[in-house]
Amino acid sequence: MKAAVLFKPNEPLQVVECELDPPKAGEVRVKMKASGVCQSDWHVMNGDWPSPMPIVPGHEAAGEIAECGPGVTTVKPGDHVIFSFRPHCGRCRYCSQGRTVLCIGRANVPPGALYDGTFRIKHKGQDINQMARIGTFAEEVVVPEEMVVPIRKDMPWPQAALVGCCVATGVGAVTRHAKIEAGSTVLVIGCGGVGLNAVQGAMLSGASKIIAADILDNKLEMAKTFGATHTINTKTNEDAAKKIKEMAGGLGVDYSFDAVSNDRTQALAFDSLAPGGHAVAVGISAANIRASYSPFMMVFTEKKVSGTFYGSVRPDLDFPVLVDHYMNKRLNIDGLISRTYKLADINEGFKRMMAGEVARGVVVFD
Amino acid sequence: MKAAVLFKPNEPLQVVECELDPPKAGEVRVKMKASGVCQSDWHVMNGDWPSPMPIVPGHEAAGEIAECGPGVTTVKPGDHVIFSFRPHCGRCRYCSQGRTVLCIGRANVPPGALYDGTFRIKHKGQDINQMARIGTFAEEVVVPEEMVVPIRKDMPWPQAALVGCCVATGVGAVTRHAKIEAGSTVLVIGCGGVGLNAVQGAMLSGASKIIAADILDNKLEMAKTFGATHTINTKTNEDAAKKIKEMAGGLGVDYSFDAVSNDRTQALAFDSLAPGGHAVAVGISAANIRASYSPFMMVFTEKKVSGTFYGSVRPDLDFPVLVDHYMNKRLNIDGLISRTYKLADINEGFKRMMAGEVARGVVVFD
Repeated sequence: MKAAVLFKPNEPLQVVECELDPPKAGEVRVKMKASGVCQSDWHVMNGDWPSPMPIVPGHEAAGEIAECGPGVTTVKPGDHVIFSFRPHCGRCRYCSQGRTVLCIGRANVPPGALYDGTFRIKHKGQDINQMARIGTFAEEVVVPEEMVVPIRKDMPWPQAALVGCCVATGVGAVTRHAKIEAGSTVLVIGCGGVGLNAVQGAMLSGASKIIAADILDNKLEMAKTFGATHTINTKTNEDAAKKIKEMAGGLGVDYSFDAVSNDRTQALAFDSLAPGGHAVAVGISAANIRASYSPFMMVFTEKKVSGTFYGSVRPDLDFPVLVDHYMNKRLNIDGLISRTYKLADINEGFKRMMAGEVARGVVVFD
Repeated sequence: MKAAVLFKPNEPLQVVECELDPPKAGEVRVKMKASGVCQSDWHVMNGDWPSPMPIVPGHEAAGEIAECGPGVTTVKPGDHVIFSFRPHCGRCRYCSQGRTVLCIGRANVPPGALYDGTFRIKHKGQDINQMARIGTFAEEVVVPEEMVVPIRKDMPWPQAALVGCCVATGVGAVTRHAKIEAGSTVLVIGCGGVGLNAVQGAMLSGASKIIAADILDNKLEMAKTFGATHTINTKTNEDAAKKIKEMAGGLGVDYSFDAVSNDRTQALAFDSLAPGGHAVAVGISAANIRASYSPFMMVFTEKKVSGTFYGSVRPDLDFPVLVDHYMNKRLNIDGLISRTYKLADINEGFKRMMAGEVARGVVVFD
């Protein structure tokens, strides 16, 4: 089978023929159907996130179960599944609390390997790592059973793929992590794949005002089609926090969601809040960035700042609900997809993403 | 009646004879019984918190209703009351949400004046401000009805006074704001009046481990008597966060409460958390201090930082419960009181506080 392999950071992906070992106990072989082109893959590809090499990137994907290893009980061949990119041991303190995104039960396994520490993908005899232990830019993969979630079969593949990362992260930040109340006022900073989904998460939750902020007007126009009631270009507007407060009715917003999470966007997220408000960091910035706040103001105004990873979703519970929302036309995923690629053209997909294409490319498989 | 008046910042308080106008509609006259000597008074006295002058400080107090103005319905002469130092209009967006500490319904009234914008205390014809509109270092005061909470009559006065500030703030931070779960691991930074009450708030809530941090060993010894299971001197221990994580079982604490809230204590509060943990700023630092965090870590570890003002209490509901807890020996307030003073000796009380006396002085009235 063919896979897009990164042999060294900052090189193009190489689509090469690989061998795939069959699933062991508790593992499944999945025939890939669609895999989104996401900024997180890029972080691996350019070395921002140190990763074992060589590696197959890709983590936002859907496919069909082709084969089950011994002991697999939750899926069977023919099932349609969305990949989850976080382990879920089901037994650690975090899984026990329903915070599966923080699972520590697999912490001792080398990243990129299956849970027994070995690899299923080989290229000319060399072990190939799988990003987040899934590595979905491949025609087929073998992954732990716990990393696939079965869904209804009438869900289209590219849309299903996006549920597994940007939809879950953006919608989940609002609905699962912050759990906003209907009637809330909301600010979303950064209108890429995650931010647009935060906008529609706010819409889904009955927000009364949804203010979208970005530095590009075309992204702000797009945000309106996802439910933003107000927009602000933070590059061309001075004192954006003041204007956002005015838009929100004077005091500020109840919730802000920062899909960028650098020092300046975090300051905007905090300063735009009404007293008692909650700023949520959603996007993943570089590890060395520091953001700051005034503890004095935090106490007097009872503000809150938190981070959500993967939208704090519980994939087994939340993916099927997100799929239903799409099928019932309550979530817009079609509008997130700009174009599709063949696996052979995957580098073109990343090139367009980095050139600022607003929506997302998806690699589709035959 | 006599009151301790600050005529200018950084001067001693002057205990002088004042005139007191009778209560107007919705106001009550209270005969003072006890008033705690608190760091917040000191912030007013030394100019840290700009305040209108001249002013009667004092905000942590209890007394007996002497007279009710027209329309007062919630208290009657003879009632024992604890003062609340936050307005509570009952109608604004925050009061409607049960977040009375953020009440904005009285925002247009000058600080220090009663709600009609006039003053009740006069000295030689001059209007005297009341700190937080109560100003409890006085033999009698007239205050809005909403700023007194009636309590049972068998509660001793000095202990009742402390319920109104340090007990409410420290216990409330844990029980009302963070709402920790039984079994949680807790770090409390700073073991003064507020911190000791956070320790016993954690105790009351069934925390499994309570780690007290301070730079003074005598305060740490005191924290043990309030329920701390572990202590750490952060002045003499390098890498305190690492040691605290070990004490908590490896990953870190579920909750941290920072009764100091400067940049270094906020960093310790954040760094000592386990993934998914919640750091609460409780103490009020100088307005110009900035604390910082890594958004990257906040997202990946789903940590949360928030501020609580006045322990996020709803005085009408929470003061009587705290009083019951004291009477049922579930809260230790006796141990918070180091000594009592006459009003004439009030400057001595502040001198001892600033010299680092561990527990609190209370001014008692005949």
